[in-house]
Amino acid sequence: MKGERAFIDGLRALATHPAARNLQDDCAVLELGSETLVLTHDMMVGGVHFLADADLADVAWKLVASNLSDLAAKGAEPLGVLLGHMLGDEEDDKRFVEGLGEALEHYGVALLGGDTSAGGPPRCYGLTAFGRATCSPVPSRTGAQVDDSIYLVGTLGGAMQGFQALTSHSGADATAFLRPIPRLAEGRALAPYVTSMMDVSDGLLLDASRIARASNVTMTIESQLVPLTSPEINRQAAMRWGEDYALLFTAPKAVNLPVPATRIGTVRPAVDAPVRLDNLPLREEDGLGYEHG
Amino acid sequence: MKGERAFIDGLRALATHPAARNLQDDCAVLELGSETLVLTHDMMVGGVHFLADADLADVAWKLVASNLSDLAAKGAEPLGVLLGHMLGDEEDDKRFVEGLGEALEHYGVALLGGDTSAGGPPRCYGLTAFGRATCSPVPSRTGAQVDDSIYLVGTLGGAMQGFQALTSHSGADATAFLRPIPRLAEGRALAPYVTSMMDVSDGLLLDASRIARASNVTMTIESQLVPLTSPEINRQAAMRWGEDYALLFTAPKAVNLPVPATRIGTVRPAVDAPVRLDNLPLREEDGLGYEHG
Repeated sequence: MKGERAFIDGLRALATHPAARNLQDDCAVLELGSETLVLTHDMMVGGVHFLADADLADVAWKLVASNLSDLAAKGAEPLGVLLGHMLGDEEDDKRFVEGLGEALEHYGVALLGGDTSAGGPPRCYGLTAFGRATCSPVPSRTGAQVDDSIYLVGTLGGAMQGFQALTSHSGADATAFLRPIPRLAEGRALAPYVTSMMDVSDGLLLDASRIARASNVTMTIESQLVPLTSPEINRQAAMRWGEDYALLFTAPKAVNLPVPATRIGTVRPAVDAPVRLDNLPLREEDGLGYEHG
Repeated sequence: MKGERAFIDGLRALATHPAARNLQDDCAVLELGSETLVLTHDMMVGGVHFLADADLADVAWKLVASNLSDLAAKGAEPLGVLLGHMLGDEEDDKRFVEGLGEALEHYGVALLGGDTSAGGPPRCYGLTAFGRATCSPVPSRTGAQVDDSIYLVGTLGGAMQGFQALTSHSGADATAFLRPIPRLAEGRALAPYVTSMMDVSDGLLLDASRIARASNVTMTIESQLVPLTSPEINRQAAMRWGEDYALLFTAPKAVNLPVPATRIGTVRPAVDAPVRLDNLPLREEDGLGYEHG
C-alpha cells in the first residue's frame, strides 16, 4: 500500500525503546519488578482479515488466537486481554461475544477491559494480550546460531485449505482457517531450549527470513521436510501462507526437545539470501508470504 | 445504539476477573510479582471521535492523552503504549506519526508495539497504555466515604468551547479540545490521599454518578463551585461535557492535598439519586453527560 512503508518507518523512528524490538508483528518484552511482561496487539478489519459474510464468533476466536500465538512464541503465560470493539449489527455482536467467550475459556484467559465505539463498516476489532515470561532470556528472532537445526511445531496448509473451502463454497472443512489453535503449551515447554522462535503468521518463508535478518544468518530449508496438512500439490503455496500459527524455532542440534517438532532445515552463515529453499536463494521480491497491510 | 447494551452486558458476563472492574472506561489493575500493573485501551473512530477534516496529528495526540488520563486517575506511572493503526492517506498518516511522537515525547512514554492494517474509511485507531501503580491501594471508583469532600483538578468547558470553535469555524482557540493534557503528575501526587478518583472523560455529572454508584453514596455538588474555563453561560453544559480530562476525586475533609484542587461538594449517604446538584436530585434520564457508543 502506498505510504505504508513511510508510515511504518515513521513509527519505527519513534519506537526507540529496547522493548520495541519489532513494531508490527512481535511482542514488546519489558522487565517489571521481579517479572518480565510480554505484550502484543493485533487488529482485524472487515474485508481485510475476514470475509464479509464471516460468522463473528469465528472472527473473535481468531482475534484471540492470533494474539495468544504471539505470546506462545515468547513462551509467555497469558494474563489477560483488552478488547477494542466497533459495534455493529446486534446479532453479529452477540456472535462476537460468544466466540470471544469460547476462546477465552478455552485458554483460561481473562477479559480485563477495553473500549467500544460506534463507526463502520468496515468493522474494526483490536485486541491487546499480555502475559508474563516463563523463562529468561525470552525467545526472540535474534538468537539463531549457525549449525542450529530449524524446527516447526504444527503443520502448514490447513488455513489455506480452509480459506479455499470458504471462498469456493465447496463445503469442505474450514476449521483450520476459522478457529486456529495457538500453541501456548508447546511455546512454554520449548522456550528454555530454543535459540530463536516466532509464530508462523505470515508464511513460513517470510517469517523464516525475519529470523534470518534479525539473527544475521541464512535459514536453509528443505521443502520436502516441511510438514503439511494440505495435499502435496499445495506444498509451495502452503510455505507462503500464514495463519496456521505453527511455531518456527531454532535450537542446537544436540538438544532433546520436550515436545514433538519437525526438523525442516539448518541455520547457515549469512550468504546471498536470508532463506535458501532446496539450495536456491529466495529473495523478498519472489514473494515469501503475506506482507501486511 | 440498538444492541449496545446487550453487547456490553455480554462482555461484562465474560469479564469476571477482579481486575476487570469496569469494562468500558476504566483500567484493569492486576498484581504481577512485586508490582501492580495498570492497563487501559481506548479507541478513536473517524466521524465518531473526531471531525472528518481533523488534523491527524491532533487525533494521535488525543488518543495518547485519553489513555494516559486513565492511568493518571490510577496514580500510575506510564511504561509504554501499543498502537493499532488503520492506514489511510499518506499525508494523514505522516501527520499521525508526528502527533504521536509529540505526545509520547511530551509524556516520556515509549511506543512498544502494535499493528497496522488496511481498511476504512472510517479510520479506526486503538491505543493500549499501561503502567505501574505507584501506591496501594490503587485509587478506584469504589472508595468514596460519607463526609468526604469532592474535588476537581482542572477546569471544565474548555474542550466544549474548542469543539464549538472548530464546528462554527469561528477561528477561536480550539487547543483544549484538540490537545488535552492528562494530569499524570497530579494523579500520582494525589493517589495516596484520595478515597476515590477518576478522570472526567464523559462529563462531570455522569462521571460523578459512576463514583456514586460504585461507592454506594450520593455525590452532592454545588454548581457554583465548579471551576470553569468557559463563560458562565455555559456552566450547565460544561458540567455535562467530557474530554477536559480533569481529575475528579474524593478525600477526607481534614486531608492536606499535595496539589491545588477545587472543592465542589460533599459525599452524602445514598439517597434518591447518585448525584444531587444544588440540592436537586439528578437522574441518568436527565442527561448527565456523554454515554458512548
